[in-house]
Order: sequence, then C-alpha cells, then structure tokens
Amino acid sequence: MKTTWFEEDRRADGVPIDDRGLQYGDGLFETIAVRLGQPRLWPLHAERLLSGCERLGIVAPATDELRRLVDNAIFSTAEFSAGVVKLIVTRGSGQRGYRFSERARPRVIIGTFEKAVYPVDFWAGGIDIRICSLRLARQPALAGIKSLNRLEQVLARNEWQDASFAEGLMLDSKGNIICGTMSNVFFASPSGLITPAITDAGVCGVMRRHILAIADADGIAASVRPVSMQELENFEEMFLCNSQIGLWPVRRCGSNSLAAPGPVTSRIMALLLASGIEECRR
Amino acid sequence: MKTTWFEEDRRADGVPIDDRGLQYGDGLFETIAVRLGQPRLWPLHAERLLSGCERLGIVAPATDELRRLVDNAIFSTAEFSAGVVKLIVTRGSGQRGYRFSERARPRVIIGTFEKAVYPVDFWAGGIDIRICSLRLARQPALAGIKSLNRLEQVLARNEWQDASFAEGLMLDSKGNIICGTMSNVFFASPSGLITPAITDAGVCGVMRRHILAIADADGIAASVRPVSMQELENFEEMFLCNSQIGLWPVRRCGSNSLAAPGPVTSRIMALLLASGIEECRR
Repeated sequence: MKTTWFEEDRRADGVPIDDRGLQYGDGLFETIAVRLGQPRLWPLHAERLLSGCERLGIVAPATDELRRLVDNAIFSTAEFSAGVVKLIVTRGSGQRGYRFSERARPRVIIGTFEKAVYPVDFWAGGIDIRICSLRLARQPALAGIKSLNRLEQVLARNEWQDASFAEGLMLDSKGNIICGTMSNVFFASPSGLITPAITDAGVCGVMRRHILAIADADGIAASVRPVSMQELENFEEMFLCNSQIGLWPVRRCGSNSLAAPGPVTSRIMALLLASGIEECRR
Repeated sequence: MKTTWFEEDRRADGVPIDDRGLQYGDGLFETIAVRLGQPRLWPLHAERLLSGCERLGIVAPATDELRRLVDNAIFSTAEFSAGVVKLIVTRGSGQRGYRFSERARPRVIIGTFEKAVYPVDFWAGGIDIRICSLRLARQPALAGIKSLNRLEQVLARNEWQDASFAEGLMLDSKGNIICGTMSNVFFASPSGLITPAITDAGVCGVMRRHILAIADADGIAASVRPVSMQELENFEEMFLCNSQIGLWPVRRCGSNSLAAPGPVTSRIMALLLASGIEECRR
C-alpha cells in the first residue's frame, strides 16, 4: 500500500497554506493502529483528541463523524487492512495573527500508512534506550494532549542515529522522568506498576491508559506519580508503550540493566495480547 | 491588495500534507514589514531565521536566495508597496515519525499581506495591556527563535476579547516577565532601558534588537536581564515593540499606570523614526 491522504472524505495532497496547523501548530493529532480494517482502541483515541480540542478551544466534529471519516479513509485506501491511520484536526484556515475566530471551521486530515516494522527481539528480548539531553519544558496548559507543537520530540529524536538505541528517554526540566520521544514509560517492582504523572509535560498515551485499565482489572497495583531520575536504579523492570508497538521491555536504560521482560512486564504483555494487542505475541 | 502565497517563486495555495511544518510545527517564520517595496530590517530577520534553522538542524537556503524569493513575492503581488511579508521555512516533506532525514529539502513559503491597521492613539497616547494567565514554559532549546510551535501564544492571545486591551503581557513559569503575545517589552527609568533576557522563553524580536542597537548608538544604557513581576512598579515607563508596529508606549499594565510616552520612550521613538521606522511618527 501507499501512503494516502484525505481531507475529510476526499483524497487530498495538500492543505491551504493559511491553515493554522501549519502557521502555528494550532491543532492536534492521533496515530492509530489499524488491524483487520478497524481502528484499534478507537474510543481512547477519540476521547484524547476531543479533550485536546476542548482545551485548545477547537470546536471538534462529533466522535461519530470522526469515526466515519477514519473508516472511509481505511476503506478508500487500496490494500489496507493493517497499518496506521494518522488523524489530524487543525483549527482550520485563519487570518494572520495568533487570535482565532470562534467561527473557524476545523480541518480534518487523515493519512493511511503502512505498519512500521521493528525487530521481533524488541518484544522478546527488550530494547536498549538512551537518555535524551533535551529536557521537556513544563507546560501544564499543553501537557497530556497530543498537539501539533512537537519540536521538543523532533529535537530529542534526532539527538542519536545509532540504531542500537530503539528509543530515547526524556526528562523534564526538573529532572523527572516523563516519557520516550514516541512512547510512555512504566516501571515495575514486586509491588506493581509505576508510571510518571503527565501533568506538566508529556502526552497521555492511549496505550498507557489501556495498560492502566487492564492492570487494574487484573488486580495489579499501579501508581501514577512523579518519578525522578534517581529512582531509576530502584526499579527491577521498565517498559515503553505506544499505540503501534503495544509494549517493549527495556533491557538497558543508560547505565542501568533491567530484566527484560521481567515477571510483571510479562504478565502485562499477556494481558495486552489477550485484549487484542497482537504485537505482544512472542 | 489580496493576501497572496508563494512556494519559493511560484504562486501556491497549498502545501503538501506531509510537510513537517504542518505535522510537527517543524519550521520557523519571520513577519517582515514592507515599506516602499523593501523588506524592512531584512538583515536582522535573515539572521534570526538562519540562526533558528541552525538550531533546529534545518539546512536553510542562503540569505541572498531568501532575499531574492522575498523580493520576487513583493514584486509579484499586485498593488503591493507597503504591508507585511510572512516568510516561513519548514523542514520540508518527510516520512511519518519525529526523526528527520539530513537530506530533507526545506520548503520556503512566502505570503504577502496588507498592513495591519491600529488606532493612531496606540503610538500617541499609549496602550492598556493585561496580564495573561497562561505562563510560558521555560525551554532554552527553543527560546529566542521564532518556530512554528506557537500554541502558547495562540492560547494567551485568546484569553481576552475586550478590544480595550491592545496586548497581553506574558510571564514565564517562574513569574518573570518575558514578552507580549506578539511583541517584546522594554521598561525605562532615568538610568536607561531594561528588557527581559530571552534565554529560557520568548522570541528575540527584530525590533527589540534594533532598539537595543539605536539606544546604544545614542548613549542610552540598556540592561538585558531577568525581570520579575514584582519589579513592575519600580519602572516609570514601559513599551512594547515588534517589527510591524515599531513601538507602543504602555499606559496601563494590569493595575500599574505609567507615563505614556515618558521621556525615554519618546527619545526611543524619535530615534526609531529617524532610523526609518515610520510608525513612530506622531
């Protein structure tokens, strides 16, 4: 299959230059896994997108309409049954200047992509990750949502070219561990899961939320709280997650070696697999 | 005249959806005043844009080529002798994912706009400004440059609709005064000028730099340093500046009343006028 773009339900190659998504990063996006022609974890993606729209004051289309557009894009892309849908909602076209009109009509852009391919060993034996030197700024007004302002992630991801590192861990300006450049992070010890609070920086990942839900349903305790870099050596297990990969155990983080996967991580992987996150089949 | 957009030297209405400027805000821009068909303060705009490109790792076109494209856009827009040129450089088209290719070809987009019109009294009698509740995050990696990640400014500018406030003052998360939503800020006392350091947040404005240069040439002392909100009441004069307006004296900032324009501000306005910033004619 080839990458295909749509504006609403029409094939499109471009957006008007006056779109505020381009001018100011004034919009949001979701990157959704598609399996058997269906957008996986759709309710969580829709909820985050709409919550982001509300926080930015973008009058979003209704969930059902967004779903219809996503389905249409999947259906209209040749040879597309498994892959990625990127759903972008911008504030739409506008005048020059930061001020927006309440009447601006949001623009919905949808792209269909091939599945990203990663080595099987990323799941089976874990990954090595590095610590990014760029620190995330603390901005409660934008934390949690997945806005089009992503320069921090762009700069952090391009700090390294060495393919032996599958991801980079990002700290905030206070030295708290927040996330990977394209993933959320969990730690585990015999007492359960710990994942950093996403109140001042980072994106509230859909897979993070799914993992918290399945852990809870399985009786695994989970704590969402600030995690400092100094705590890293206290944890026995660590994993990264996102909507495309499910979960990758971390084998090495900076100079710390970890069980990959350890018992808690293995249990979470089994639960993910049972919930339909097929990447966690090992 | 009508707003007209160009990609390089061709008329354009849209950009490819895979442009990283849209996808991630991965790019920079300049808003340049055009007077008598010439881009005003061009060397300062070009320098900031190229410095921004360097910091983001975008291989920018040479200054001469950028100038040629700007001149072409001005020349190619009907009835255009005075107004605004917006010059955008994005990292160009790319694959999905934060990682960029070193071989990505930057995209140069240029728009020509009518001059924004403001009441004459903004210069003659000063403006009232409010204090924005959104605090700027401190991010040294992005401070100073004018990137396409502008959601903080969008949110701050849309905190108020009351036209009696011409601008909003923005503080950072530490409570330091940084800038307006679309302007830089100066304070003045008998000992000279003070303007906030732009090392952790804010944009290093072209007019700010021009004012620092003309003040220096005139023997007016200027200090660039952190300025806390508590200091506000110690200053006798305050003004905002940007490339389009030149300078607006501030008459009222929150609950503080100021001389508008006071003697130092008046002197700076006269120097600006003498240097070709015609808006400062009163």
